[in-house]
Amino acid sequence: MSDEQKKIAELRARLSEVNDLEMAGSLLNWDQLTYMPNGGADARGRQLATLAKITQEKFIDPAIGKLLDDLAKYEESLPYESDDASLIRVTRRDYEHATRVPPEFLMEFNIHSTNSYQAWAEARPENDFSKVQPYLEKTLDLSRRYADFFPGYEHIADPLIDVSDQGMKASTVKKLFSELRDELVPIVKAITSQPAADDSFMHEVYPEEQQLKFGESVVRKLGYDFNRGRIDKTHHPFMTKFSLTDVRITTRVKENYLGEALFSNIHEAGHAMYEQGIDLKYEAGPLGGGTSSGVHESQSRTWENLVGRSKGFWEYFFPKIQEEFPAQLSKVSLDQFYKGINKVERSLIRTDADEVTYNLHVMLRFDLEMQMLEGKLAIKDLPEAWNARFFHDFGITPPEDKNGCMQDVHWYGGFIGGAFQGYTLGNILSAQYYKSALAAHPSISQDMTKGNFTNLHHWLRANIYQHGRKFTANELTKRATGSELTIKPYIEYLMTKYGELYDI
Amino acid sequence: MSDEQKKIAELRARLSEVNDLEMAGSLLNWDQLTYMPNGGADARGRQLATLAKITQEKFIDPAIGKLLDDLAKYEESLPYESDDASLIRVTRRDYEHATRVPPEFLMEFNIHSTNSYQAWAEARPENDFSKVQPYLEKTLDLSRRYADFFPGYEHIADPLIDVSDQGMKASTVKKLFSELRDELVPIVKAITSQPAADDSFMHEVYPEEQQLKFGESVVRKLGYDFNRGRIDKTHHPFMTKFSLTDVRITTRVKENYLGEALFSNIHEAGHAMYEQGIDLKYEAGPLGGGTSSGVHESQSRTWENLVGRSKGFWEYFFPKIQEEFPAQLSKVSLDQFYKGINKVERSLIRTDADEVTYNLHVMLRFDLEMQMLEGKLAIKDLPEAWNARFFHDFGITPPEDKNGCMQDVHWYGGFIGGAFQGYTLGNILSAQYYKSALAAHPSISQDMTKGNFTNLHHWLRANIYQHGRKFTANELTKRATGSELTIKPYIEYLMTKYGELYDI
Repeated sequence: MSDEQKKIAELRARLSEVNDLEMAGSLLNWDQLTYMPNGGADARGRQLATLAKITQEKFIDPAIGKLLDDLAKYEESLPYESDDASLIRVTRRDYEHATRVPPEFLMEFNIHSTNSYQAWAEARPENDFSKVQPYLEKTLDLSRRYADFFPGYEHIADPLIDVSDQGMKASTVKKLFSELRDELVPIVKAITSQPAADDSFMHEVYPEEQQLKFGESVVRKLGYDFNRGRIDKTHHPFMTKFSLTDVRITTRVKENYLGEALFSNIHEAGHAMYEQGIDLKYEAGPLGGGTSSGVHESQSRTWENLVGRSKGFWEYFFPKIQEEFPAQLSKVSLDQFYKGINKVERSLIRTDADEVTYNLHVMLRFDLEMQMLEGKLAIKDLPEAWNARFFHDFGITPPEDKNGCMQDVHWYGGFIGGAFQGYTLGNILSAQYYKSALAAHPSISQDMTKGNFTNLHHWLRANIYQHGRKFTANELTKRATGSELTIKPYIEYLMTKYGELYDI
Repeated sequence: MSDEQKKIAELRARLSEVNDLEMAGSLLNWDQLTYMPNGGADARGRQLATLAKITQEKFIDPAIGKLLDDLAKYEESLPYESDDASLIRVTRRDYEHATRVPPEFLMEFNIHSTNSYQAWAEARPENDFSKVQPYLEKTLDLSRRYADFFPGYEHIADPLIDVSDQGMKASTVKKLFSELRDELVPIVKAITSQPAADDSFMHEVYPEEQQLKFGESVVRKLGYDFNRGRIDKTHHPFMTKFSLTDVRITTRVKENYLGEALFSNIHEAGHAMYEQGIDLKYEAGPLGGGTSSGVHESQSRTWENLVGRSKGFWEYFFPKIQEEFPAQLSKVSLDQFYKGINKVERSLIRTDADEVTYNLHVMLRFDLEMQMLEGKLAIKDLPEAWNARFFHDFGITPPEDKNGCMQDVHWYGGFIGGAFQGYTLGNILSAQYYKSALAAHPSISQDMTKGNFTNLHHWLRANIYQHGRKFTANELTKRATGSELTIKPYIEYLMTKYGELYDI
């Protein structure tokens, strides 16, 4: 074994240990959100903090820095795309990020965000913003301090955005969102001035057991591998993984709304199939994960919206869902169903929003984040600013903060900044990727009507899944579609689909 | 804060970190045995090994040794029973044990026992001892090497026994088992020469869902706290904990045997109520656990046998189980039921054995362990030796090794030595403790017929549960019963109970 081979082996061994600790933390978190009895909460918080601390200690070990330095020449000698060069490159980036943030800061932030989350979980049902205000003020302070560990930024949000969407800057996102907004606003206006679609059949009683069974059958058919995953119930559905061969999703059922579990299952399965599709040689290392929050969201949105809310998809699945729920759906036609699941309306809650209005919810949050970080909006004025902007964009004033600025967990359990842009980036990318997939395999739409998703998976695996974190979102998008991120395919997609459904 | 207080605080902080890592490992293990999809197995093995390694590294850190040395004077200044003195004493014992075993040996043993377990899991259904023989040979070698890290032992099994039953030696156990054997053999002979009890009603069809529901209602009534625990399904039931306020049990249902889930639930709940009853001030430290395998087993056996197979218990629960399963039990009388669940018979499998013959199964294993460790029995001759001894003790020759020397996982997933004595020590102790509890609260038997277990819990909490590992098994037994471990109460219990059921 050459000296370089020895060093890369040692690097891999150290990173595998770090990954094992991270994955253990993920399991503790999954258990906390699925099965843990109430009594376990305090100890679990402590255990998660200990694992986070030791994981960080092991990763920022100067021995890893030394190995990365020693391996710099080896990296230069290799093609950019080689596994070893990519491992060294991505690890170096992570290492440089991690070593800039003092462990004491991380500890302070972890403790604060746990407390803040608990305050929010109690204050939200009580609709009491005053209870979370001091926590949010500290969160804003911590978010700014975090950014300051990365001096030289153009905008104070840049380091925060960079955590989940590497390479993106506040200025890029602002420009992109402004373009998208100019396109979306007239579409929303045109649609919402027409009579709303009838989706009352979605609100019949759909028994939980049957919903769980049907939801499972759908994601199985889409290609989610139950030999390397499973579905459990939780309060707020999420995807998590404990290895590339154990990628789990969670679900939530509302008995009086068929769309809840169904589309959430497809969404989370989209995230999971991305992780399940990563090349197994990246197991237990920094390359073995999705490359950015935008790309990850593009995968969940592809399956949830471009596939799961398409006509072709329901040509295959509608007879099956009718068979499962004859009392509720036998008198509904495929066309009515398709229109119902694509109902566009101005509504209060982001996570319930349709494809067309969804991004306006995201932009509102992004813009307020920017104002808070820039010091132009004080936390105490957030509810008022939220409501004013909401009225401006949606023509409705949220009657209560719990359905306004307290509706999303993000600011209350993490940083202010960087939390929301990924959702809209994902929507944009989903259409851009899908267009390229269709160009390569024009039969994808037709395949779908027969319950066949092979070609779509084939394209996604080759162009997205398999690479893990080897390429950045930008690199991946250019390789997969031949161009940088662009909103054109997304606007085309919305215009075509909603142009057929509405008069726009 | 005094220097001593600072040091004890630092010791507690370090031990809490070690405990957090251990508990994370327990959760990974629980998940592996309950919910993990097949695909997760390889990564899980690696993750568990990493956690074990880091836990060991953190615990044998010389800084902990230094703190223990520095705190020796403080310890001497305190009463033996004080929490601080006990923490220092118990930690020192654990530390001295842990530091004697080189991490490389532990790693070798962990890897070997994982492989050995897998070989056993495959070879057992095939009834092929030759496939596990080489693994067992290495296990025997590793078990001896482990003992040799503790030179000066009287018997090579002593260090292995000491791991789970501190203070016990091979010579003590041999003497005790020999006395017990002399008492048991005539009882077994007398009972098994009479017609066997009829328990055919136990083998009707009992649907899984109903069994799970009834089993849950029973352990809830007994005092297992579901706010700090839960029941999940697994292959081989066990109890595990992730903190003193999250102590879980697992169960397995056989639809054609009512006794399987029912008594296994009560057994595991007995283990769990011990852990749930430990004083919460011992959370996240070495005192927060059961004190020995014998004392732990005494708690599971108390609830499973002394309570759960008693007449008084079923005076309360029989009408309820009849109501749950009217088709299967409406024609069975309480007396028939009581006789059926206490049927004594010479059978092949330890875990299915009744109270009377159970200990003979344990003694057989213990004696064979001694012979193997002493070099008097070669692994290749184990099946023959097992069968010969089994015929001698039970008058039956096991038709297949899978129901003979391959039936228990212990030797195939751990050391040879120290694995089995705890079961019989537990049976003995259960009767000794129960006698003292009855002396303190004579109404316990009568309370039980009304579904009231308060006084029994009260005694157990005060005398056993709360102390955690503060006292050794010997100390605890003397404090709780006024005498050292003795087989007398156990023999009295068996003679009284089975004297009423059979002519002995």
